[in-house]
Amino acid sequence: MGLKVMLVDRDAERSAVLEQTLKEAGHRIVAKLREGEDLAAQVQRHQPDIIIIDMEDPGRDTLEHMREIGRDQPKPIILFSDRRDSDYIQQAVQAGVSAYVVDGLARERIMPIVEVAVARFRELQALRDELVEAKTQLADRKAIDQAKGLLMQRKGLTEAQAYQLLRKTAMDRNARIGEVARLLLSLENVL
Amino acid sequence: MGLKVMLVDRDAERSAVLEQTLKEAGHRIVAKLREGEDLAAQVQRHQPDIIIIDMEDPGRDTLEHMREIGRDQPKPIILFSDRRDSDYIQQAVQAGVSAYVVDGLARERIMPIVEVAVARFRELQALRDELVEAKTQLADRKAIDQAKGLLMQRKGLTEAQAYQLLRKTAMDRNARIGEVARLLLSLENVL
Repeated sequence: MGLKVMLVDRDAERSAVLEQTLKEAGHRIVAKLREGEDLAAQVQRHQPDIIIIDMEDPGRDTLEHMREIGRDQPKPIILFSDRRDSDYIQQAVQAGVSAYVVDGLARERIMPIVEVAVARFRELQALRDELVEAKTQLADRKAIDQAKGLLMQRKGLTEAQAYQLLRKTAMDRNARIGEVARLLLSLENVL
Repeated sequence: MGLKVMLVDRDAERSAVLEQTLKEAGHRIVAKLREGEDLAAQVQRHQPDIIIIDMEDPGRDTLEHMREIGRDQPKPIILFSDRRDSDYIQQAVQAGVSAYVVDGLARERIMPIVEVAVARFRELQALRDELVEAKTQLADRKAIDQAKGLLMQRKGLTEAQAYQLLRKTAMDRNARIGEVARLLLSLENVL
């Protein structure tokens, strides 16, 4: 269960302990970026399990990159930094950082932080997925009810007949019933 | 935005830096527990925003307490520990720890860890709440549809009449329509 790690640093010497510790723990550095490189594109390309940013003095660009990742292709992000001003930390929290570790590059401290960050992030993602699924089911159900009503009214069908018609149309189009229902509703004024 | 902190330690001297740092950052220690005290009861009583466990050598009991909290009254939990065996860390991760910090009691390292743990935990809880809400709506909707069908069949009502009857019954009982629908379905064989 080795992780694919993307490392972003400004100073290779500083990150040497980090890199070494990750490798010894069986993880793989899939990409090493310097600050200022296009993080989003690299994440897209390498699909890391975790992004570790190690910077003495990270700035606004780093925050902006974290926000962008969180919005478009969320990954757990750990920030090792020497900045300890609480304004900056707050902004990093809001940008979605999974762990913010000041002066934390001691070897024995790294792996627990990585493991917890990945575990909690996966839990969060699983919940998000489940929520999207539940909301889709709910929206489908509402659309199907409305579409049934429309068919009953326009074509004088019973509820069972209306549902059968939706179901058959969905099967013929290889689509979900909810999709067919939504399509029908969107065309209500045309029909 | 001071946090209510519950502190669990074995050694008051060891936790002094932690306590001092939290207080200086504007947070309040609502309870200090020794290992072995009934954590769940104290959490119930004090309703802390975060639980910080600080133990050189935490054991199985600590894991069991964390699992119990996670199951019955979830809170963010940070574990400061000197144990660095990955078996134990894995078990702590599974028990739901929000941060696991080895040898991490340096003053400047504490607050970012606390802030991130609280922020990510709240995000998780908000998602959980939203999921429960979406699933309830979905279950309500399914029950309402079934109950409408039952009323249409048994009492010869139209769909609109069946819905009106459910709605009126719910208002009279000061209940949600979904609850009335479920109640009706549970009594289907009796009716």
